[in-house]
Amino acid sequence: MKSYKIALIPGDGIGTAVIDATWQVLNKAAAGAGFALDGTSFPWSCDFYEKTGAMMPPDGIETLRGFDAILLGAVGWPKRVPDSVSLHGLLLPIRKAFVQYANIRPHRLLPGVEGPLRASAFDILCIRENTEGEYSGAGGRIHNGTGDEVAVETAIFTRKGVERILRFGFEQARKRRGKLASVTKSNAQKYSMVFWDEVTAQVAADYPDIEVANYHIDAMAARMVMAPESLDVVVASNLFGDILTDLGAAIQGGLGYAASANINPERNAPSMFEPVHGSAPDIAHLGIANPIAAIWSGAMMLDHLGESRAAAAVISAIEAATARGIGTKPGQHKTTEITGAIVAALA
Amino acid sequence: MKSYKIALIPGDGIGTAVIDATWQVLNKAAAGAGFALDGTSFPWSCDFYEKTGAMMPPDGIETLRGFDAILLGAVGWPKRVPDSVSLHGLLLPIRKAFVQYANIRPHRLLPGVEGPLRASAFDILCIRENTEGEYSGAGGRIHNGTGDEVAVETAIFTRKGVERILRFGFEQARKRRGKLASVTKSNAQKYSMVFWDEVTAQVAADYPDIEVANYHIDAMAARMVMAPESLDVVVASNLFGDILTDLGAAIQGGLGYAASANINPERNAPSMFEPVHGSAPDIAHLGIANPIAAIWSGAMMLDHLGESRAAAAVISAIEAATARGIGTKPGQHKTTEITGAIVAALA
Ligand SMILES: CC(C)[C@H](C(=O)O)[C@@H](O)C(=O)O
Ligand SMILES: CC(C)[C@H](C(=O)O)[C@@H](O)C(=O)O
Repeated sequence: MKSYKIALIPGDGIGTAVIDATWQVLNKAAAGAGFALDGTSFPWSCDFYEKTGAMMPPDGIETLRGFDAILLGAVGWPKRVPDSVSLHGLLLPIRKAFVQYANIRPHRLLPGVEGPLRASAFDILCIRENTEGEYSGAGGRIHNGTGDEVAVETAIFTRKGVERILRFGFEQARKRRGKLASVTKSNAQKYSMVFWDEVTAQVAADYPDIEVANYHIDAMAARMVMAPESLDVVVASNLFGDILTDLGAAIQGGLGYAASANINPERNAPSMFEPVHGSAPDIAHLGIANPIAAIWSGAMMLDHLGESRAAAAVISAIEAATARGIGTKPGQHKTTEITGAIVAALA
Repeated sequence: MKSYKIALIPGDGIGTAVIDATWQVLNKAAAGAGFALDGTSFPWSCDFYEKTGAMMPPDGIETLRGFDAILLGAVGWPKRVPDSVSLHGLLLPIRKAFVQYANIRPHRLLPGVEGPLRASAFDILCIRENTEGEYSGAGGRIHNGTGDEVAVETAIFTRKGVERILRFGFEQARKRRGKLASVTKSNAQKYSMVFWDEVTAQVAADYPDIEVANYHIDAMAARMVMAPESLDVVVASNLFGDILTDLGAAIQGGLGYAASANINPERNAPSMFEPVHGSAPDIAHLGIANPIAAIWSGAMMLDHLGESRAAAAVISAIEAATARGIGTKPGQHKTTEITGAIVAALA
């Protein structure tokens, strides 16, 4: 029987609960489709940091490299470890080291879920650049703590980095409704974003079949709320993609529904699958975390592994559960109830 | 009779129509309250650029310095002049040169206007840093046009700049519901945004009466859609404020309702008042631009000039018009009809 080696990183807070739930669902789907998942769990987290002084061991990245895919829950517990330490010590280095440059985030309303908008047409695919740009981590501070203090943070965009994410986006648009929106802020950021616009125009020339539009990030945020039905594939930089996908999650009905895949399209390193939501320390021990975003991310993992039939079965099972009103309102059902309903729908 | 010298910069596209409308309303309000507005109009715009090669004359800033306030329509016509040229040649230099560091943008639902959200509680005040940060204009590109091209854009934050906008925000919170949300992305941008968070904590110590919360920009975008009633004053950097205020405008029902004041709180240079919306070239000659955002911005100008009674009268007149269904749906009423209704309500 075919078997996939999966690295599980539950991480912090509700990460554990949603990964437990996801693992249960994925194994059920695997059994149904005739393949196996061979999971190895890593306790890397803020707990781990408090014990060892690092979010993961020095050879963490090398350890992960041997896996077929990584399933991650959530990282961060700001009251214990500054986010700028925890995220830069675990989540962000994985995305960069494994060149998971395409962060895919589907946003659509699940059956039975009522979003915050009056309008109900909402089905977009965000493609976020995931390795450079505003998250380059380049910068510094001088005159610390004095009235003269200055902090700088440099966004770095490479042609290779911008071009590959745009090409990836265009390919996705071909599989969907043939529309691509590129998001920048070229009216204010005249180096980075003007460059992005230029690359968009160049890459677009290779995709005459795709309808391309350029939006500023502010206008795009407004459009997602006012005219979401006008959008199909949305391609954005690391920061802009981050913002738009939380907004997308909100329009879906909440962070509990937003799935995410950090893809290395060249497949020369493992890809990572994680919900968009964070660790939510405030509800970490209440048993009410919504596992749907993580399970949906797990389905994206199966799809990436080539198990598209099992992936589709998981998505259908999620939809069957929400259509019955399970997991459609925050805190209404326990994590175990939602998971149980999805597992049952798979049977 | 007291008289104020106002510089009018209609700018591009619908800018002219909304400034005409605003000027009519403000003069009516001034007459009612017993003061005069002495306006001088400047044709600085993309038209001007095409004729002269610059968005404004070399002594433009010095010319404006002599005025009590500036009323601006909209700048930009991307098909004719790149935004990165037009905005950096007119709008952005005024904000910076006159140290209009506090960009105030009120967002609330006007009577009769149905926003895109199911929930209808929405009343927040965005305070956006307006002179530095991600809009510093510092950056460059190398290996232009080659596969090795790299573009960098550096956000520069100074302690003075961050501290003064936060203090301004805290003062506003005191006049409202006593809550301040500071927006960063300190989990990913560990120089600039961690610095901002530190300054927030320091300034907050001087305002023990204000309830302070820190949000990441992605979470804030989601919160504005999911739980806007939890927010009061929102303070953000130049870029984050830009994004959140377009989102705020969308939640208000559209860009046609979003007013904005670029304030120099020390009053050692003129402040500038402009709607959040752009020049909308596509509807520039249709006579259907909604002037409410510009008129509301004009009311903020009167308030800044000390004419708070007249300012309040203008706001009430806007509300009287929208309550009657005038200007509440895009394109439904002509600019002149909406203006007429507001002028009539002032009588
Ligand atoms: C936790 C944080 C660093 C992360 C990001 O900004 O990428 C998260 O918000 C996300 O969207 O995956
Ligand atoms: C036109 C543009 C440069 C401007 C900005 O980003 O500041 C506008 O979007 C605004 O919000 O005033």
